[in-house]
Amino acid sequence: MCQLLGMNCNTPTDVTFSFSGFAQRGGRTDHHTDGWGIAFFEGAGLRHFVDHQPSSESPVADLIRRYPIKSRNVIAHIRKATQGAIALENCHPFVRELWGRYWVFAHNGNLENFHPRLHAAFHPVGATDSERAFCWLMQEMAKSHAGVPDVRELTLTLRELTPMIARHGTFNFLLSNGQALWAHCSSSLFFVERKHPFAHAQLKDEDLSVNFARNTTPDDRVAVVVTSPLTVNEDWTAFAPGELRVFADGRALA
Amino acid sequence: MCQLLGMNCNTPTDVTFSFSGFAQRGGRTDHHTDGWGIAFFEGAGLRHFVDHQPSSESPVADLIRRYPIKSRNVIAHIRKATQGAIALENCHPFVRELWGRYWVFAHNGNLENFHPRLHAAFHPVGATDSERAFCWLMQEMAKSHAGVPDVRELTLTLRELTPMIARHGTFNFLLSNGQALWAHCSSSLFFVERKHPFAHAQLKDEDLSVNFARNTTPDDRVAVVVTSPLTVNEDWTAFAPGELRVFADGRALA
Repeated sequence: MCQLLGMNCNTPTDVTFSFSGFAQRGGRTDHHTDGWGIAFFEGAGLRHFVDHQPSSESPVADLIRRYPIKSRNVIAHIRKATQGAIALENCHPFVRELWGRYWVFAHNGNLENFHPRLHAAFHPVGATDSERAFCWLMQEMAKSHAGVPDVRELTLTLRELTPMIARHGTFNFLLSNGQALWAHCSSSLFFVERKHPFAHAQLKDEDLSVNFARNTTPDDRVAVVVTSPLTVNEDWTAFAPGELRVFADGRALA
Repeated sequence: MCQLLGMNCNTPTDVTFSFSGFAQRGGRTDHHTDGWGIAFFEGAGLRHFVDHQPSSESPVADLIRRYPIKSRNVIAHIRKATQGAIALENCHPFVRELWGRYWVFAHNGNLENFHPRLHAAFHPVGATDSERAFCWLMQEMAKSHAGVPDVRELTLTLRELTPMIARHGTFNFLLSNGQALWAHCSSSLFFVERKHPFAHAQLKDEDLSVNFARNTTPDDRVAVVVTSPLTVNEDWTAFAPGELRVFADGRALA
């Protein structure tokens, strides 16, 4: 099973701490060694890094651990290949443009017999079920709205579309357009909201802890969504199977 | 004026040497300090790095100088802003997907009063004339072919489309889909073909030389396209104004 990490914040925040523990799962504390990737929004712009080397050994992952890129929306993925060879074009997250915005998608799970009709502007470059699912979501979103819908409207559309894919298998996913982070759980997804008063957190996968109070202001809010909890001493909330949540400005919207 | 660098090879080759000199033009030997970017194809997959810090100071550029990514098609760009703020979403190269392949585009020049009707699937995320030109090219290419055309067919299409943009101003550009490198010159573009017998080359922008014979085989072929020659002792051929050339397997096609 792959590993997902998403971050949504109300102010640009670096993901160095969470990424440090997460990257260990690519080859060291877990067996997801078939590539990895991460995408950071900066305003409408995007930094997108993918590598088919294990994240615990990748020089690009090392750069990201050492170079704090600040972002309000981040999606990262460590791959355990189920469908599609170990190749750069099969590494998540995937990126497409729609309505003049970039959209970033990463998937954890496996979809059986999922070969939707892709008759519009979105076609997979690689050979994964995940990229097919993303292309179909983009195609159907493009039909449902004339331009970028607001966050709540798009959430309703995604709640209609997601079950049509999820019935083909396991479909935990993260999606962002730089304004919000959407997260859907089939089998395993957790989130935590970090806010004032910030506390000390201890990583599960690496002997590293951080006192968030030191680098934050009382107004900062950060939501982190992940396949399994990253820290041992924070209150992680489990998603229910079939649940789709949206995070904006560092908090889960009702 | 911005700076363009393109490389097309018959075997995966690292761009470290050429990029070392090129990156100096972003703030050190030239005044292009408004961001930079580089894209490497690996098969159908793509590594895409953009940064709005000057390339001579960017930690990401430093990674690329030290970490030899091997690729058959590379496009790099250093930005001197004419239209659009200094922001990540305005950094070249730009990427879109069409027909299940990634397409990478970088532009040097300035287009006046170029606001084409973008009625299909490609819309700019940033505010540059360059990304508008790319989106229009993608839109018109999508209309002209049902799937990925072969290299010579697409060259004919591009020779029809390019003048419609070029009449709006300066339009030097590089375009690649991982199979070939297309290069159009309005005002300044040069290329060199490196092949057996490989020789010693001396960079113009940095005190660095390389003996290509040491790391190559007699079958290797590399074409490099650039805004102005990178080395002082190689035979660079100037493009004619209005000329569009295509490079495949490390050589200029007739």
